[in-house]
Amino acid sequence: MNESYLDKFARLTIELGVNLEKGQPIVIRSSTDPELVKFARKCAQAAWKAGASEVLMDWRDSEISALEYANKDLEAFKTAPSWKVDFYESAAKNNAAFLLIDGDDPEAFKDADPLKMVSARMAMNSATPTYRGGIDNGSLAWCVVAAPSAGWAKKVYPDLSEEEAVNVLWNDIFRISRIDENDPIENWLQHGAKLNAQMDKLNQAGIVKFHYTSSNGTDLWVDMPEGAIFVGGASKLADGRENFCNIPTEELFSAPALDGVNGTLEAVFPLNENGKLVEGFGFTFKDGKVVDYHADKGKEVLDALLQGGDGADRLGEIALVDKSSPIRQGNRIYYNTLYDENAACHFALGQSYAECLPGAQTMSKEDLKQHKFNQSEIHVDFMVGADDLNIDGYTKEGKLIPVFRNGSFTTEFDL
Amino acid sequence: MNESYLDKFARLTIELGVNLEKGQPIVIRSSTDPELVKFARKCAQAAWKAGASEVLMDWRDSEISALEYANKDLEAFKTAPSWKVDFYESAAKNNAAFLLIDGDDPEAFKDADPLKMVSARMAMNSATPTYRGGIDNGSLAWCVVAAPSAGWAKKVYPDLSEEEAVNVLWNDIFRISRIDENDPIENWLQHGAKLNAQMDKLNQAGIVKFHYTSSNGTDLWVDMPEGAIFVGGASKLADGRENFCNIPTEELFSAPALDGVNGTLEAVFPLNENGKLVEGFGFTFKDGKVVDYHADKGKEVLDALLQGGDGADRLGEIALVDKSSPIRQGNRIYYNTLYDENAACHFALGQSYAECLPGAQTMSKEDLKQHKFNQSEIHVDFMVGADDLNIDGYTKEGKLIPVFRNGSFTTEFDL
Repeated sequence: MNESYLDKFARLTIELGVNLEKGQPIVIRSSTDPELVKFARKCAQAAWKAGASEVLMDWRDSEISALEYANKDLEAFKTAPSWKVDFYESAAKNNAAFLLIDGDDPEAFKDADPLKMVSARMAMNSATPTYRGGIDNGSLAWCVVAAPSAGWAKKVYPDLSEEEAVNVLWNDIFRISRIDENDPIENWLQHGAKLNAQMDKLNQAGIVKFHYTSSNGTDLWVDMPEGAIFVGGASKLADGRENFCNIPTEELFSAPALDGVNGTLEAVFPLNENGKLVEGFGFTFKDGKVVDYHADKGKEVLDALLQGGDGADRLGEIALVDKSSPIRQGNRIYYNTLYDENAACHFALGQSYAECLPGAQTMSKEDLKQHKFNQSEIHVDFMVGADDLNIDGYTKEGKLIPVFRNGSFTTEFDL
Repeated sequence: MNESYLDKFARLTIELGVNLEKGQPIVIRSSTDPELVKFARKCAQAAWKAGASEVLMDWRDSEISALEYANKDLEAFKTAPSWKVDFYESAAKNNAAFLLIDGDDPEAFKDADPLKMVSARMAMNSATPTYRGGIDNGSLAWCVVAAPSAGWAKKVYPDLSEEEAVNVLWNDIFRISRIDENDPIENWLQHGAKLNAQMDKLNQAGIVKFHYTSSNGTDLWVDMPEGAIFVGGASKLADGRENFCNIPTEELFSAPALDGVNGTLEAVFPLNENGKLVEGFGFTFKDGKVVDYHADKGKEVLDALLQGGDGADRLGEIALVDKSSPIRQGNRIYYNTLYDENAACHFALGQSYAECLPGAQTMSKEDLKQHKFNQSEIHVDFMVGADDLNIDGYTKEGKLIPVFRNGSFTTEFDL
């Protein structure tokens, strides 16, 4: 078979990423950057080949969006356009799959007002209950992948020419996403099986509390909600089929208890929050809530995020990533959450994933909150996996179970 | 002033093309081709600078649309998506300006079923009465310009490299659009004044019937509806302000009587109908209706067009272009209607422009039809301006007034 890596990546994205069914519509979100356009076309082609009933495009252009942030008042971002609400809601009602091709310039919105950005996202989220609900409770199939915009490639490889940087970043993406001479679907089923086995070990250990420590100042206690489990690899859709919401994915993740987080966390990578970078930052929590925070750069982004409504100032995700991850091994910061979060242990502020609570797919948001699962309009990951990170687990009975030592799973969990 | 030609072209497009008002929204339609993206960004910037309240983007990608034509059944194209209808209707209700950045590959849809393409357009047109009505009766400001996609540039300059072809085509566009070292607005006001003066001469001549003849077989009689006038250069918006709907524009145009066209017309350029080429074609008319037609290539495009509903098989526009036009002088076929129609006398099948009937802006479609103005879901221009084209005009009293000799205005009308 003489299938190019790009074609393989597109097929993997459609067949495993969103696991498109014959007769299902798909929404593809892409930017106008040439490499993203090229990959979007490949994905559209793969989607039709897989039997899509419809391929709907949602294009963005970060330069034009930056102009919008610069020229429109905050108030204007507080209402989502009706046609865009209709686009997402009608697609969700038709059980569309949702594919996001990420990879924009990490600093595309460095001059934008973060309050405008958060407001726009919150307005859209609250106006699209079918779409947001389906994404959050896992009944809709969605997937995030990334392709190298020129801006992203130059941020990761500033010393290369634009063309070289794009090529080198494509090669990183292929390597990290397990695209090689073999069948990509096979590679991923194997990878998913390994993550599943690790997930089972972790869930069987009966850990109800974690303690994170590393030399950079992280010292955090995290209670787990009753019944919460770690998941990883493939997600289960409402109809029982499986898909991979992130390509790549190297994490096992769950939800911390909404009111059960205490201590301090220091980030180890910059955070690229939708085109704005935050560097050298950390949080202090008391009973789940952020009570203090700092940042060397981009603190105004955190200011805006933490004002992102109910739950924005509490954690919603706890995720374990071994430092042997192929992304971490490249020893490179990608300034892109999809890549960086799969290089290191991380947490997220905001919305929890309902799939981490068996039976949650039919629960209301209120029910989930009762189960101590964060319900929020935002979900922002940040990385805490220092090279010397230790994580201890404790069972209900108080038994200590070492989970991480020096950034890696202990032998008990390392398969 | 060190303003680049590209910036000047964008400013001309916004300030004169759609004549954007402070506080007015604008819809910009562009493809994802890199040069169109580049120009769309410049236009968005110019629009914000001119005081736009909102810049709404409608992106297209011809490769992805071609996949859609190839994979979806005809039936699916007969209904316009509700969100797209909402996008156009709500923008039109907010009195948005509409800018189309054209310039796609003239053969992007060479393999597409023309019936699907016509159906999609008709479905969208009939579902958007506020938008279509506002475009047709001139109460909405709209403008069509073009930027060189790689595909278009290579079609016009097949012997150049893609990069060279794009650069040479940009230079053509600048030259033809009167972008030079001077202020582009001044250049265009002068050009508009000349077209206006010519228009006045033609309207004062009292011509009620035209006779077209050229050696390629054209021999056509055209009656004019009572009260119809020729217009050219700037259009008058409902509120009295002026805009240029086409950049470039070299034509004086009016509407032929719906039932008053008899004889034969031979096209002199290929027709690029939305990504499909028709070559070596012509029509025979009786009492306004097409009774026969032929094409050496792409006849199926004409088959589909003529089935485009009421009025699709009758003319709706008669346009005079002197062969001294800067586009014709380059002696090059552009395979793009905006450019080719401004190189030669042409007609259009389908919808007439209401601005060619004083007082028509408040008339219903039925009223306009009573005035013998074609009302149709389509509008497709084709060029008939042979080098030896002669056009005679006749007054109500039967007086002969020579209008064109050998492809150029007679001295009476040449200013």
